[in-house]
Amino acid sequence: MSSAELPTAVETPEPGSRFLDEIREQPEALLRLLEGQAEFARIAAEIRARDATTIRMVGHGSSDNAASYGVYAFGLLPRWTALRDSISLSVYYGAELDMSGCTALALSQSGRTPDVVEYARHAKRRGAYTVAITNDASSELAREADAVIELRAGHEQAVAATKTYSNQVAALGLLAAHAAGQGEVFAAGIRAVSETIPQLVRSVEARIASVATPFAYAGRMFVVGRGAEFATAREIALKLLETCRIAAEPLTATDLAHGPVAALDSLFPVWAIASGDATLPAVVEAVERAREAGATIVASGDAAGSIVGADYVLESPPATSPLLSPLLSIVPGQLFAWALARARGLDPDAPRGLSKVTLAR
Amino acid sequence: MSSAELPTAVETPEPGSRFLDEIREQPEALLRLLEGQAEFARIAAEIRARDATTIRMVGHGSSDNAASYGVYAFGLLPRWTALRDSISLSVYYGAELDMSGCTALALSQSGRTPDVVEYARHAKRRGAYTVAITNDASSELAREADAVIELRAGHEQAVAATKTYSNQVAALGLLAAHAAGQGEVFAAGIRAVSETIPQLVRSVEARIASVATPFAYAGRMFVVGRGAEFATAREIALKLLETCRIAAEPLTATDLAHGPVAALDSLFPVWAIASGDATLPAVVEAVERAREAGATIVASGDAAGSIVGADYVLESPPATSPLLSPLLSIVPGQLFAWALARARGLDPDAPRGLSKVTLAR
Repeated sequence: MSSAELPTAVETPEPGSRFLDEIREQPEALLRLLEGQAEFARIAAEIRARDATTIRMVGHGSSDNAASYGVYAFGLLPRWTALRDSISLSVYYGAELDMSGCTALALSQSGRTPDVVEYARHAKRRGAYTVAITNDASSELAREADAVIELRAGHEQAVAATKTYSNQVAALGLLAAHAAGQGEVFAAGIRAVSETIPQLVRSVEARIASVATPFAYAGRMFVVGRGAEFATAREIALKLLETCRIAAEPLTATDLAHGPVAALDSLFPVWAIASGDATLPAVVEAVERAREAGATIVASGDAAGSIVGADYVLESPPATSPLLSPLLSIVPGQLFAWALARARGLDPDAPRGLSKVTLAR
Repeated sequence: MSSAELPTAVETPEPGSRFLDEIREQPEALLRLLEGQAEFARIAAEIRARDATTIRMVGHGSSDNAASYGVYAFGLLPRWTALRDSISLSVYYGAELDMSGCTALALSQSGRTPDVVEYARHAKRRGAYTVAITNDASSELAREADAVIELRAGHEQAVAATKTYSNQVAALGLLAAHAAGQGEVFAAGIRAVSETIPQLVRSVEARIASVATPFAYAGRMFVVGRGAEFATAREIALKLLETCRIAAEPLTATDLAHGPVAALDSLFPVWAIASGDATLPAVVEAVERAREAGATIVASGDAAGSIVGADYVLESPPATSPLLSPLLSIVPGQLFAWALARARGLDPDAPRGLSKVTLAR
């Protein structure tokens, strides 16, 4: 099945091995992020001192998915309004919004995404306190910003992000927690999660091929999540698009009912992320509708067991807070993408048409 | 092809005839919206008087798509920050955000979407000035809100929204324009657009079957737009999902490059909306990448002619402002969905599994 079974040059890794390694490296990456805790505390204090408590987040791809999580982290912890801001509005249309009272969080793994760099420059000029969240502390983005949160995820070789995504999520959560005076508690939660991931990776890895292979010919999929897990839904959908070439679309549970459910049938599977929090009834109800339409259901998340009649269950262990579970619930999605890409004969390390640093506008 | 060719009861309309009628009714619906101009002026003045200039918008489906447009309308005209707010954060997680200084615009055609009604109630309690934007001025949502903008689109019978969507877009633009002291100019623009639509509908209708039929077996599609036309991209994708059962995903031009482009091939078409404004180079570049991947390209928008090598071109006439063009560029997408649904033997008036008023949570 994989090209590793054929004679190859010594230095050529097995397709997907980098992606898999980086999925496995997430616990250590999360622990490294915590080494920068003092900086999180300092930046949170600075945001408070400047009263810059409207949080504008920008990024593309996985970075934008992490920003979806930030809406909940800042909303639930310091109770601040956080939004995924429009880059086009500032960078292309040149709208001169008053950004005093705002913190701009510019997310870019490479620190080189052109319009994110340009947004940060614009936001600073318009009065925002600007913070770069990047894996490269010497990048252009880091130089432009007032402050830098270094992701410390280590070098990421696979084109599809894994450990940089989870460190972005953790960084947003940790900054929000520090802003709410709960930095230590949240850091302890991240530590606990990093101890839980290795066992989760092992148990999912052991059975993921049997879950993924039946989807070898799938052309499309919805990934449903709500609340903090909407970020997870977006990120799983993106992994499926990039590495498996499935037309995977993320939807909130309620949005599924507002139209897209009409497209479902037995050849249009649905992945549902169920969390054991207040959003669970909405997710359960959405999946029930999808099942009525004949869709195959993959249930994941810490409340996957609450999804009645799921065809496949990839439960993750419960976290101590709904804001920590996305760090666990992303893992089965990443491993599913890895296994499915291999089943489809694709190399998840190097999807066609992509490069690690995207300089497209 | 259609069941109208078979003997049917007199009162059964031809499949898709309501959807088509309502597409054609958009000009009159837009003119009716203008009858409520005094109320737009009053509400805009009230927002200013209360200094409630952070605009939080909520809605599902087409209403949420219209809200994407609102980000640009409020950003470009009064230069206010407008965001598509998270309903889950307030309604499910009960986050107690300070919403003083905010206006909450709750969008629901029926005025009965449960979590939108609940959000409006919550937002008022948290200090927001609340405005219902609805087609039913006697609905629960209208009763809960501090003020009501009546869409006046007339009764919409087809399940998939058309004239209520365009009136929501126009209503957000008109409110933003009044807030910027440009209400009369924008109203004149809406009038001009309403005079342009009938000819656009006629010319697209005449040739849409020949454009749509080659997609009769398509299973998936990306719809790309940027800036104010991202709302159009989202709305066209939703029409294709609901009425044609295509897995259609909306993407900004730049997001396409950040991963999804890897999924493209000759069986994965791309619809691109090109506007003759500052976002055009990004859209042109994204389409170029899609073409390199072998994707069939449908180009629409007022700058469709700038898309080199498009397989199908559905150009719309230029509007006087980038904020008016979404009212024109949506039309070819609606007609394409209508024609394609018919080519696939589906009834766009009544997609399977949907009802006109969605009460799902």
